[in-house]
Amino acid sequence: MTDVEQLASRTRSFVEERVIPLEDVADGDVHAAGGEWLRADLQEQARRAGVFAPHVPVALGGLGLGMTERAPVFEAAGRSLFGAMAINANAPDEGNLHLLERVVTGEQRERYLVPLARGEVRSAFAMTEPPPGAGSDPAGLTTTARRDGDSFVLDGRKKFITGADGAGFLIVMARTSGAPGDSGGATMFLVPADRPGVRIGRHVSTIDRSMLGGHCELELNGVRVPEQDVLGEVDEGFRYAQVRLGPARLTHVMRWLGAAQRAHEAAVEYVSRRSGFGRALARHGMVELMVADNEIDLAATRSLLLTACRALDEGRPGREETSLAKVFGAEALHRVADRAVQLCGGAGVSSDLPVARIAREIRPFRIYDGPSEVHRTSLARRAVRRYGADEPVAGAS
Amino acid sequence: MTDVEQLASRTRSFVEERVIPLEDVADGDVHAAGGEWLRADLQEQARRAGVFAPHVPVALGGLGLGMTERAPVFEAAGRSLFGAMAINANAPDEGNLHLLERVVTGEQRERYLVPLARGEVRSAFAMTEPPPGAGSDPAGLTTTARRDGDSFVLDGRKKFITGADGAGFLIVMARTSGAPGDSGGATMFLVPADRPGVRIGRHVSTIDRSMLGGHCELELNGVRVPEQDVLGEVDEGFRYAQVRLGPARLTHVMRWLGAAQRAHEAAVEYVSRRSGFGRALARHGMVELMVADNEIDLAATRSLLLTACRALDEGRPGREETSLAKVFGAEALHRVADRAVQLCGGAGVSSDLPVARIAREIRPFRIYDGPSEVHRTSLARRAVRRYGADEPVAGAS
Amino acid sequence: MTDVEQLASRTRSFVEERVIPLEDVADGDVHAAGGEWLRADLQEQARRAGVFAPHVPVALGGLGLGMTERAPVFEAAGRSLFGAMAINANAPDEGNLHLLERVVTGEQRERYLVPLARGEVRSAFAMTEPPPGAGSDPAGLTTTARRDGDSFVLDGRKKFITGADGAGFLIVMARTSGAPGDSGGATMFLVPADRPGVRIGRHVSTIDRSMLGGHCELELNGVRVPEQDVLGEVDEGFRYAQVRLGPARLTHVMRWLGAAQRAHEAAVEYVSRRSGFGRALARHGMVELMVADNEIDLAATRSLLLTACRALDEGRPGREETSLAKVFGAEALHRVADRAVQLCGGAGVSSDLPVARIAREIRPFRIYDGPSEVHRTSLARRAVRRYGADEPVAGAS
Amino acid sequence: MTDVEQLASRTRSFVEERVIPLEDVADGDVHAAGGEWLRADLQEQARRAGVFAPHVPVALGGLGLGMTERAPVFEAAGRSLFGAMAINANAPDEGNLHLLERVVTGEQRERYLVPLARGEVRSAFAMTEPPPGAGSDPAGLTTTARRDGDSFVLDGRKKFITGADGAGFLIVMARTSGAPGDSGGATMFLVPADRPGVRIGRHVSTIDRSMLGGHCELELNGVRVPEQDVLGEVDEGFRYAQVRLGPARLTHVMRWLGAAQRAHEAAVEYVSRRSGFGRALARHGMVELMVADNEIDLAATRSLLLTACRALDEGRPGREETSLAKVFGAEALHRVADRAVQLCGGAGVSSDLPVARIAREIRPFRIYDGPSEVHRTSLARRAVRRYGADEPVAGAS
Repeated sequence: MTDVEQLASRTRSFVEERVIPLEDVADGDVHAAGGEWLRADLQEQARRAGVFAPHVPVALGGLGLGMTERAPVFEAAGRSLFGAMAINANAPDEGNLHLLERVVTGEQRERYLVPLARGEVRSAFAMTEPPPGAGSDPAGLTTTARRDGDSFVLDGRKKFITGADGAGFLIVMARTSGAPGDSGGATMFLVPADRPGVRIGRHVSTIDRSMLGGHCELELNGVRVPEQDVLGEVDEGFRYAQVRLGPARLTHVMRWLGAAQRAHEAAVEYVSRRSGFGRALARHGMVELMVADNEIDLAATRSLLLTACRALDEGRPGREETSLAKVFGAEALHRVADRAVQLCGGAGVSSDLPVARIAREIRPFRIYDGPSEVHRTSLARRAVRRYGADEPVAGAS
Repeated sequence: MTDVEQLASRTRSFVEERVIPLEDVADGDVHAAGGEWLRADLQEQARRAGVFAPHVPVALGGLGLGMTERAPVFEAAGRSLFGAMAINANAPDEGNLHLLERVVTGEQRERYLVPLARGEVRSAFAMTEPPPGAGSDPAGLTTTARRDGDSFVLDGRKKFITGADGAGFLIVMARTSGAPGDSGGATMFLVPADRPGVRIGRHVSTIDRSMLGGHCELELNGVRVPEQDVLGEVDEGFRYAQVRLGPARLTHVMRWLGAAQRAHEAAVEYVSRRSGFGRALARHGMVELMVADNEIDLAATRSLLLTACRALDEGRPGREETSLAKVFGAEALHRVADRAVQLCGGAGVSSDLPVARIAREIRPFRIYDGPSEVHRTSLARRAVRRYGADEPVAGAS
Repeated sequence: MTDVEQLASRTRSFVEERVIPLEDVADGDVHAAGGEWLRADLQEQARRAGVFAPHVPVALGGLGLGMTERAPVFEAAGRSLFGAMAINANAPDEGNLHLLERVVTGEQRERYLVPLARGEVRSAFAMTEPPPGAGSDPAGLTTTARRDGDSFVLDGRKKFITGADGAGFLIVMARTSGAPGDSGGATMFLVPADRPGVRIGRHVSTIDRSMLGGHCELELNGVRVPEQDVLGEVDEGFRYAQVRLGPARLTHVMRWLGAAQRAHEAAVEYVSRRSGFGRALARHGMVELMVADNEIDLAATRSLLLTACRALDEGRPGREETSLAKVFGAEALHRVADRAVQLCGGAGVSSDLPVARIAREIRPFRIYDGPSEVHRTSLARRAVRRYGADEPVAGAS
Repeated sequence: MTDVEQLASRTRSFVEERVIPLEDVADGDVHAAGGEWLRADLQEQARRAGVFAPHVPVALGGLGLGMTERAPVFEAAGRSLFGAMAINANAPDEGNLHLLERVVTGEQRERYLVPLARGEVRSAFAMTEPPPGAGSDPAGLTTTARRDGDSFVLDGRKKFITGADGAGFLIVMARTSGAPGDSGGATMFLVPADRPGVRIGRHVSTIDRSMLGGHCELELNGVRVPEQDVLGEVDEGFRYAQVRLGPARLTHVMRWLGAAQRAHEAAVEYVSRRSGFGRALARHGMVELMVADNEIDLAATRSLLLTACRALDEGRPGREETSLAKVFGAEALHRVADRAVQLCGGAGVSSDLPVARIAREIRPFRIYDGPSEVHRTSLARRAVRRYGADEPVAGAS
């Protein structure tokens, strides 16, 4: 076994032994199962087991794995809904860390990146807004950042901000130029959560319940941010969002791949133990069909994921590969979980098995991080640019 | 408008005004929203509104609608997850009433059927057992009823008994002859829930939360049932189960059709109010595709449903038509609800709209009342008998 | 049996005995199997068998069936690719007859409608044009009709004109006002095929081969049409096209339903005669799944078809019902034929069985008579008008 | 560009310039387009262009590419239905060469392998039989080989033997021990096509028309084969069939991937040149959806294909990876071709564009080389062995 294979194997054992029993407690509701206390406890155990922070650069105390290397490790962690949290590789922290690593300067490193890498604080990424603001189409951004001397003053409302409740700091996207609808003019700001004017609102109640800190509403009322807390360059926020999004989509696929794989295995075990109509369920053709389709969907997701990881590891932007892996993965893993439910019959819709819980958690991935429809539109436009006529009819390029 | 159309229209108004506000309270969790108290309150309101018990024979105080007539009325009720309960047309009571109506004799009528028809008690249908007992394949029945003088003594364990907690009586299926695996030998018994030896166990925690009384485990330990509480003939239980199941499947389709229709309408309204990428969401082709596919699935379900209702109203057994409507409907309505979720984006996976809640409640219908795979197997075998070779190869008949 | 059931039964026997043997001759290629000679022969036999022209009004020598009545009869005829031709109910003649019946005046009746009803001539409907002319979007119409004294002079090019080669007359759609892109301004003209300036070009070679007279290119070079050969009112052509299209789409569904049903039956018989891996193919679960899905698709198509027929028979426009039946039917029947191919393995892709041939003929129906995408768009827009917000965002209704 | 990329690029240019024009001649019917003469001509041109036999070992005059390397080259060749034939990489010769390379001994090399590698003869692989013989389940093998002194005498009937008409020799699978139904007992024989007792029968007429030599029926009547023409060991035929099948399935995927990619490109170009309803077709959301789904299916097929190629190149058996790539690829590429047809509307079902022709040729791949159902069954059983309970219920192993 390579080092990475060994790490994946240890991560898997750790998750099976330490994390899954705690997931089972409250049907995977992270707050009911302990919330922040649970996170601290699991991360401490992960540190001792040597499986903490595999993706964090070595200089920051992590294991320094590239995208391709982290795929099997994150998949192993993702087998439990709390696994990625345990190794400090959960969304949005993991994506935020990736972003900060590439963009922070000077003091920002010690103040924001280091404690995040160590699991000392959580973070949130505050881009999405209530309609008609930034959503699937980020250009709708309405939150404003007005320059006032050496600082900026932020005003606006955000929605669906994952992990905001309890986060130590927020990365806030706000408009420094242009108007809603413009594809430029956004800037990222590092904002401690206790800064005056930041108000964390209600948790939007969603079908997924495994994200610590919920999906929150958020108000920014005259929040003052000093110049040195601008993340990167002014007006370059949309570009940095892309830096963050590609890998964040892939690590989402890795984690949900682990969860779907676990649901599949639980379902296969179930049908091998039960019989009906004179035969083991596992020997009925319609059952075999679902099992085989799961194998196909899992293998195809893994193949597309690794193809995209290699692109990023080779320094290519990999936007097409990332979109392909995200859109196929989100839909395929949903199908896998849904078939696992069906395979287990009545037990499949109960909390006696993990399959319903996993199906519930995976469903939103077809919407989060860009709905399938948005990814398909961009894939189609790229194809038209590549294969379309040189002089298309009006409106077609 | 015909009388039935008027009734459907009144039922719809009643549900919109009186029931849906109460459904919204606890995201459709019937126990959290009030449980038995809620049921009593809604039924009282339904009586006053003249929409109570449309399917109950006139002699029993109902409106006496046939299958075809009740379709639009149950659909109107089904728009709310609590609507069928409000008009006393919920599973399993509605199916049990249908069964009792056809099979009760003598005193059973006053003791069981009349109070059920009036909504004075709830009931449960206790057939399913933990593996390896009766499940998708009812022949696995293991619960026994041993004759002892003028009575029977019942022993066994049941699982997934909808509505058992709080029911006034149970219809228990037990084996009076033969062995597990035999396709005959079952008998139905009417058992008051407070009879010694009856123990209602835990609610199996499932993804659906709108069924009053839960899906329960149940133990029968030496439960004594006098001869006069045998429902119908001894050893004819499997035949009566068929009497119950056909219409019960269709009324399930009616109710879920209403819920899916409501989710669809909520989603269409949503996309007509939001815009992105320079256009109303409702004008994006990929959105229009989902809206159209919902229209198609709803219309096809309605067509197959009415075709089956006409068969039953004409006195034909309609087993094929019923299976077709159930298997197509369960899958189509699930697709409708899932597309409604997708159409609403982040709001679609939240409890701010009813779509996620409806999707959650509909999902188990692909499993309950015979999983899709069991219905497909019987449809296929019927086709082979009809179109297959007269002398098929060994094993093909 | 009702009269209609008897007619359907006789039609089916006629098709099995007289038509299918001739279809088998040249793998269903109508020209290779005899072309016009074949048509004359089969129609003569159909007349003698009393199954000719079931849809033609009694006054014109037919059997006068309404839409609902003709469904089972056309389905019986459609079991053979040549069956509808044999009873003079094939596209485009059947749709043209329906149109003429409603719109002809005076002498047009004797000259065009009567011989068409009797099968003495064939006809074509010349609307579609090469890009960028009239296609899925008829508004693109470019062929012009310029008034010149008592007559009109037609110029333009048509494409994909089914049955044009050998037709006695054409119904030509040409623009009498407005410009390409306008949704009005079209007029219909009755044009004998031997009129100077009419040039029938090549047959577009397509995957379907059962349409007599091919799908032709057509040139109109200064074709003079006297005023009395205007069909209906000037500038009302698009409205009449709708009169024609609704029923024509439904009769297409009827005919292809018959063909798909026959493919399904052939496949079921096949799997009941073959075995593999120790069992009859018909007893393998994955085979049963395909058989059951065929049953479901056939039943749902039939249900939606009859729902639409009833709307037309009741005098309602039924545009929504017709679209639903067409778009669902075209796709469902394609799936049925494709599964029939798969069920028969190697034999399924050969001409030893009729299944590949039927699959080939049905495929274009997802495109002909309005592609699925166009029907879905109109279904979606209707849904948005019905369920959308009263004041949608800009661009939505 | 690497050497392989350069070769792929040259192969693509060669195919575009030299092969596709000849494919267009007779709508891709290889016999109508010239048959053996066409093959000889194209292969001569390929030799001159330096693109001949990329997969053939260097010692045999080829370019010696491994599986991973040949993937892009075969894909480039597969863009034309005649491309693989031109570079001598067509089925069944390419798979037969692969088999012979690994198993021939002594004189067999010069007599069979060398001329095949050079394109001097064609070959056929005679395993499949008419029912109830060897088919999807090869164990049904009925053709017998009886030992008679120093030779064997072969008797039996074969069916669907691709390329048999005109082949120089056949590899015949016959039973040397056991009985039909046994999973062992088969032996492979090298049989010159002009050996007494070999009778090539009719071509089974199939929807695909690009395979030179057809899919033939074949009789073996007392065909005498000397001992030295046994291929490999007696009774090991089924094992060798596996040696042949894995790579043969992957090269099929490579070739059809090229064809499907070409259909996709043709469709994208088409929709970029046409407009309707006020916009370029390429800008309609439902069109973009189909374009994007094609991109996804093509990318996923390519990923799974390369994953399997790497397994084989690393010397692993890769049976699971091969099955996954074959079953997913056959279905995905069929979907791609079908969507390409739909995107092109009327032109899509005509021979004016290559899309209908490619769809027709790809369809049988879901059946040839193991139907999807057989691959799914083996994938499911492998999953049950891996994830199933250690002590499953009876019948579930």
